[in-house]
Amino acid sequence: MFLKQFILALFLVFTLGCKESVKTDTIAQETQGQEMVDPLPSWNEGAAKSAIIDFVTKTTTNGSSDFVPEKDRIACFDNDGTLWTEQPLYFQFIFAIDRIKAMAPDHPEWKSEQPFKAIMEGDMETVLAGGMKSVLSILGTTHAGMTTDEFNKTVADWIATATHPKTGKHYDEMIFKPMLELLDYLRDHGYKTFIVSGGGIDFIRVWAEEAYGIPPDQVVGSSGKVTYEVKEDGTPVLIKQPELNFIDDKEGKPVGIHQYIGKRPIFTAGNSDGDYQMLQYTSTATGYPRFGLIVHHTDGEREYAYDRESHIGELDQALDDAEKYGWIIIDMKSDWNTIYP
Amino acid sequence: MFLKQFILALFLVFTLGCKESVKTDTIAQETQGQEMVDPLPSWNEGAAKSAIIDFVTKTTTNGSSDFVPEKDRIACFDNDGTLWTEQPLYFQFIFAIDRIKAMAPDHPEWKSEQPFKAIMEGDMETVLAGGMKSVLSILGTTHAGMTTDEFNKTVADWIATATHPKTGKHYDEMIFKPMLELLDYLRDHGYKTFIVSGGGIDFIRVWAEEAYGIPPDQVVGSSGKVTYEVKEDGTPVLIKQPELNFIDDKEGKPVGIHQYIGKRPIFTAGNSDGDYQMLQYTSTATGYPRFGLIVHHTDGEREYAYDRESHIGELDQALDDAEKYGWIIIDMKSDWNTIYP
Repeated sequence: MFLKQFILALFLVFTLGCKESVKTDTIAQETQGQEMVDPLPSWNEGAAKSAIIDFVTKTTTNGSSDFVPEKDRIACFDNDGTLWTEQPLYFQFIFAIDRIKAMAPDHPEWKSEQPFKAIMEGDMETVLAGGMKSVLSILGTTHAGMTTDEFNKTVADWIATATHPKTGKHYDEMIFKPMLELLDYLRDHGYKTFIVSGGGIDFIRVWAEEAYGIPPDQVVGSSGKVTYEVKEDGTPVLIKQPELNFIDDKEGKPVGIHQYIGKRPIFTAGNSDGDYQMLQYTSTATGYPRFGLIVHHTDGEREYAYDRESHIGELDQALDDAEKYGWIIIDMKSDWNTIYP
Repeated sequence: MFLKQFILALFLVFTLGCKESVKTDTIAQETQGQEMVDPLPSWNEGAAKSAIIDFVTKTTTNGSSDFVPEKDRIACFDNDGTLWTEQPLYFQFIFAIDRIKAMAPDHPEWKSEQPFKAIMEGDMETVLAGGMKSVLSILGTTHAGMTTDEFNKTVADWIATATHPKTGKHYDEMIFKPMLELLDYLRDHGYKTFIVSGGGIDFIRVWAEEAYGIPPDQVVGSSGKVTYEVKEDGTPVLIKQPELNFIDDKEGKPVGIHQYIGKRPIFTAGNSDGDYQMLQYTSTATGYPRFGLIVHHTDGEREYAYDRESHIGELDQALDDAEKYGWIIIDMKSDWNTIYP
């Protein structure tokens, strides 16, 4: 249960799908209002894929009663578990653990100081037993007390080198190919795509532009305070402080959407109860049609299978209320023919 | 002096410049790397206009050693005094005063309660003598305790009807035509344009998309806290709280740029010492060329003339240090042949 608290405190946390432009008559089928070429090749034919294509078509076809002007085509995506894998731990937490290990040689005192001693010994139980104090200590050490440029470099270096314990892939290779196709498909139809994550905004921005084609100003996330200081040589820097600024999770997600985006989304995708309020805020809006999508992790073989009982990415209430709000559930195992690029 | 405090506490325009597409040989002059048609017709020929055109040309010409990739072409504009007039009071403060007057019939107790009594009597001296308590009371009454949708409606109604005491124009007609041309010119060259204002983010977003072509998610400003609540009938709403969230002024502007945009600007425009740190943060950055611009209000006839001694839009330190940082000073009287659209 303790891991659930992480998402509240953590300043959490590659290739763009190649657009297929082959337009041979043999593979192309023109159906009403649909593309000549399948825009979502990693998605199996079925109710979920049809619902997406129908929605995008009707909201972007001039003259349709459901037409949405381009300026209002806002699409919001959760990140952990929605755009990339989040098991066995949020990748940003793995980054923090790796940073502690990398910093350890300069901190001999950590040999006897918790939670650092336990991290070095790989004793996660003791780390987690330290509760919020332990988490804040790890965060304060790895996400604050440095300039924003210095932090960005540690994230970029980590993303370029670290690998996942189960797949051996780099973490930015564990983004979901079907979701990359969906992001491209929406953008090709005039949608502006945003990340709205419980994870750390500074962590995500470092690699999201290359990984997802989403620029930093379209990333919303949790954040710490930052101060502006001018060094003695006249160089201004931004210093990351060990104080929370904003938690972009649960009720925080609609608040973050308001503060950062300022418009109510037309299309929202998530995968856990942390996305419940964001989906609710989207689906109950009037004026335009709205689309809510939930990625259900059902594929223990190719990825991970979890929902109601999971410490990470718990999906319970949102699963119960999906029908009530008309949210489309993606069954990863049957709806996606490919997971990673 | 007290008015200066407003900018710290306040959760502090109309036609887009028509793009001239006439391309007759008689008016067009092709100079190296420059447009066929003058992109800044409201700007008189001179050092300021040349500096802008040279900068945009060199940063957007493929093969130039100063070329900046499109993804990094971030341009930030202050709002009050930079994109529209800010005298005799920040327009948002006039909005707040007007709101108090409109709400008065439902508040008979205000007949004896300050600062409301003084506002009703047009006695601004007493209002201002009330200090921060007075300001927070005005803000709490006019900018909080309502849903975001309700607030947006009051702003939209006010912008559509209220008029300026000196010009008689609607406030969104008091945007600067030369700056609209500059925004268009930058966007036509792949720059993404942002507002970074000490004023209230929720106030500006209501009309900025139509006035400046800048969508809500590209507006950074001061803000109050907002909470997410679900009403008894199941409708979710965002409630504006009377608690400050972020002050986007002075040192707050580089912080706001970091938190909202996540990239250091290439081009920054301001008009007061409130923009000093944002200009400094821009001009001291390495890697790409940078441009800092200051609108100097020198035209008491067509607009207002003020700088070092002004209670609103004080321009003192930034004027002293402009040469040091290479900031271009716009002399409104001589550089602009037109002020308003």
